[in-house]
Amino acid sequence: MEDVRVALLGCGTVGSQVARLLDEQAADLTARAGAWLHLEGIAVRDINAPRDQAVDRTLLTTDASSLIDGADIVIELMGGIEPARSYILEAFEHGASVVTGNKALLAAHGPELYEAAARADVDLYYEAAVAGAVPVVYGLRESLAGDRITAVLGIVNGTTNYILDEMTTKGLEFDDVLAEAQRLGYAEADPTADVDGLDAAAKCAILASLAFHSRVAMDEVHVEGIRSITSSDIAAATRAGYVIKLIASAKRRENGIEATVGPTLIPNSHPLAGVHGPFNAVVIEAEAADRLMFYGRGAGGAPTASAVLSDVVAAASHIVEGGHAPRELIYADLPVLSLEESVARYQVEVAVDDTVGVLTEVSGIFAQHGVSISAVAQDHEKIIKGEDGLPGQAVCHLTVTTHAASHEALEATIAQLEDSDAVAGINRVIRVEEA
Amino acid sequence: MEDVRVALLGCGTVGSQVARLLDEQAADLTARAGAWLHLEGIAVRDINAPRDQAVDRTLLTTDASSLIDGADIVIELMGGIEPARSYILEAFEHGASVVTGNKALLAAHGPELYEAAARADVDLYYEAAVAGAVPVVYGLRESLAGDRITAVLGIVNGTTNYILDEMTTKGLEFDDVLAEAQRLGYAEADPTADVDGLDAAAKCAILASLAFHSRVAMDEVHVEGIRSITSSDIAAATRAGYVIKLIASAKRRENGIEATVGPTLIPNSHPLAGVHGPFNAVVIEAEAADRLMFYGRGAGGAPTASAVLSDVVAAASHIVEGGHAPRELIYADLPVLSLEESVARYQVEVAVDDTVGVLTEVSGIFAQHGVSISAVAQDHEKIIKGEDGLPGQAVCHLTVTTHAASHEALEATIAQLEDSDAVAGINRVIRVEEA
Repeated sequence: MEDVRVALLGCGTVGSQVARLLDEQAADLTARAGAWLHLEGIAVRDINAPRDQAVDRTLLTTDASSLIDGADIVIELMGGIEPARSYILEAFEHGASVVTGNKALLAAHGPELYEAAARADVDLYYEAAVAGAVPVVYGLRESLAGDRITAVLGIVNGTTNYILDEMTTKGLEFDDVLAEAQRLGYAEADPTADVDGLDAAAKCAILASLAFHSRVAMDEVHVEGIRSITSSDIAAATRAGYVIKLIASAKRRENGIEATVGPTLIPNSHPLAGVHGPFNAVVIEAEAADRLMFYGRGAGGAPTASAVLSDVVAAASHIVEGGHAPRELIYADLPVLSLEESVARYQVEVAVDDTVGVLTEVSGIFAQHGVSISAVAQDHEKIIKGEDGLPGQAVCHLTVTTHAASHEALEATIAQLEDSDAVAGINRVIRVEEA
Repeated sequence: MEDVRVALLGCGTVGSQVARLLDEQAADLTARAGAWLHLEGIAVRDINAPRDQAVDRTLLTTDASSLIDGADIVIELMGGIEPARSYILEAFEHGASVVTGNKALLAAHGPELYEAAARADVDLYYEAAVAGAVPVVYGLRESLAGDRITAVLGIVNGTTNYILDEMTTKGLEFDDVLAEAQRLGYAEADPTADVDGLDAAAKCAILASLAFHSRVAMDEVHVEGIRSITSSDIAAATRAGYVIKLIASAKRRENGIEATVGPTLIPNSHPLAGVHGPFNAVVIEAEAADRLMFYGRGAGGAPTASAVLSDVVAAASHIVEGGHAPRELIYADLPVLSLEESVARYQVEVAVDDTVGVLTEVSGIFAQHGVSISAVAQDHEKIIKGEDGLPGQAVCHLTVTTHAASHEALEATIAQLEDSDAVAGINRVIRVEEA
């Protein structure tokens, strides 16, 4: 049986699990790959840093280039742009296939890496870069190769999913849950990448590119984080039969691709509504297959290592048996739509004076901008205290759910609502997905 | 660009959708397969039978053998054992790859077909044979190639899932829902294959074989259908926070593989609990990946055709670029356990006389057989009328949930409970899955 030489770059949470599994499951992996997967070495920055006990310290080296030079498959789990990018290009130049979990690198330099892999006629795999163990890259690249995808909707960031879950079940505010999540190690000390949606945006760009055979860059994804979500938003969602999730959404529209990340109302009956805590899930809507969902752990050393190893087995079997991973397919080359052009259903909560004719006034403003209303709910009245401490004007809340409308039309509607004398304020504007 | 010649055998619900999509999505499919997929002809029994308008009638032929002779890929969607089996073997002999959705054939003759494909060095694909559009064959053959699977749990039969759903939401009895489902065309006139679990058992055998790299035959799967489920069983499940689902289960135990199909209590928080109506889903538990779920439409022409076409694209790209589908891997060669050896958690509802000491008596019987109890709930009392029409003995219901126990120990427990003077009857025995 052939020997396939594997080089591992990086030995953190995921890397150490990859090393462990390569050793512990050697017999199984060999049977499936049709070759011995031989771990030649592990490139690290500091050989003396503390490591998982399962890691054979004699494999550690600081000389990544020599390791790459003698490898058939390079597993890149260092993260960050450089030197990861240079090492991957080096691997391709040496004729090695690459398995990476580096979403930031793919979002920033995907096309360059894809082209280099194709030129070298080797594989580039990256299942672990999106949604951890969830095989959604596989699903998009291969399982749906016979279908036309219309939408991809994903919960692809575990930290924000955990925070929104805690806010929902415990009625807490964002800041308190974030502080607790940081204390427990579920959120980073600098939580920006997660809570402001940047991590999800990188994954959204990768998903959109795969689904629509076009190049979508991370900075073309319209991003909104979850910092502005309040316990009152969540309570209102719960009352109306929804949960609020941070959704990475990529949709095919007539005139291009819409790629957004933002807090979204998901109906309780939608399969994404039941995705809790550290789990990730991606729903794919396709013309023939209708709705599919892939669900699993979005992070963690062992789950992510499982995704890495499935890619390693695929790359190894190509080395032994011929064939190769699907190449980057960008034949569709669709444009990415601006935020203004993007189309969604929205829910808008408007505080209004409780007077006759106010509903006509408000619904008229939506109509003027061509935003069609699917439902209006009126909250029980609230008496706002006047400045003198006595009961003042009665105010009620109208929750308006729209049909699909362009972001531009929505913004114009909101602006005019804010100017209207009948409107005391706009409490909330949030996207809504269909069941 | 190369031409890949495709022969289609069968032009029913799925076949006609495959023909339509091959035509409508020709440009996309060509880009992905790296070859023109040219539909050479469609073998049918009766050329003059009514067909979907999308089918080009000039492609129809009754001469399957000539069609197979000139094909690179044969899509078999005739169903049944013969002549499907002979045609597939014929295709392999002519060096063609085969894509099939025929679960009955695979469950009965899988090993023979696999061996013939390997001998001919061509592909055998069958995503559509299990759970329609849900890419679980892909998941097991490829996505989890780097992991060790411990359990597969699936809702793989839409008819029974629909019936149990209707019973749950409307409080109806099995017979009434079945009759209505037959009237609506959701259930066959002869519903045996569905409601008695045979369809699920064929799929269970395929899933178990793939998951554990061993051969599991359909008749080794222990099957129980849903005919015995009553509205009272469902009401009790609902009260206790469960739903009843027909679950195809394949688990790796220390001494072999356990493969069962039967009604099972699924906790509301389990991802399978939210799988409704025509949707199928398969949960895979693996050592490193932890829990994954694949969800989608389990039947229907277009969804199943989507799965068929993904297989066609994969087979075509192997013809053009080299490589091949994963071969049958049976290196583990684990034995399949008998029903007696199988291990599960159970819920047992026992009607008992409402007397002091009855709980001690009942729990003692479980203990005698080594069946450990995790919880006991006591239902409110019911007064059973005596023969004279006057109030008789007070009876209450004990619902005992066990820890994992062998089926043998459970049967012995039930037998002794039935003999006990304190026990008026056993109302219900049902498997329970963990959250």
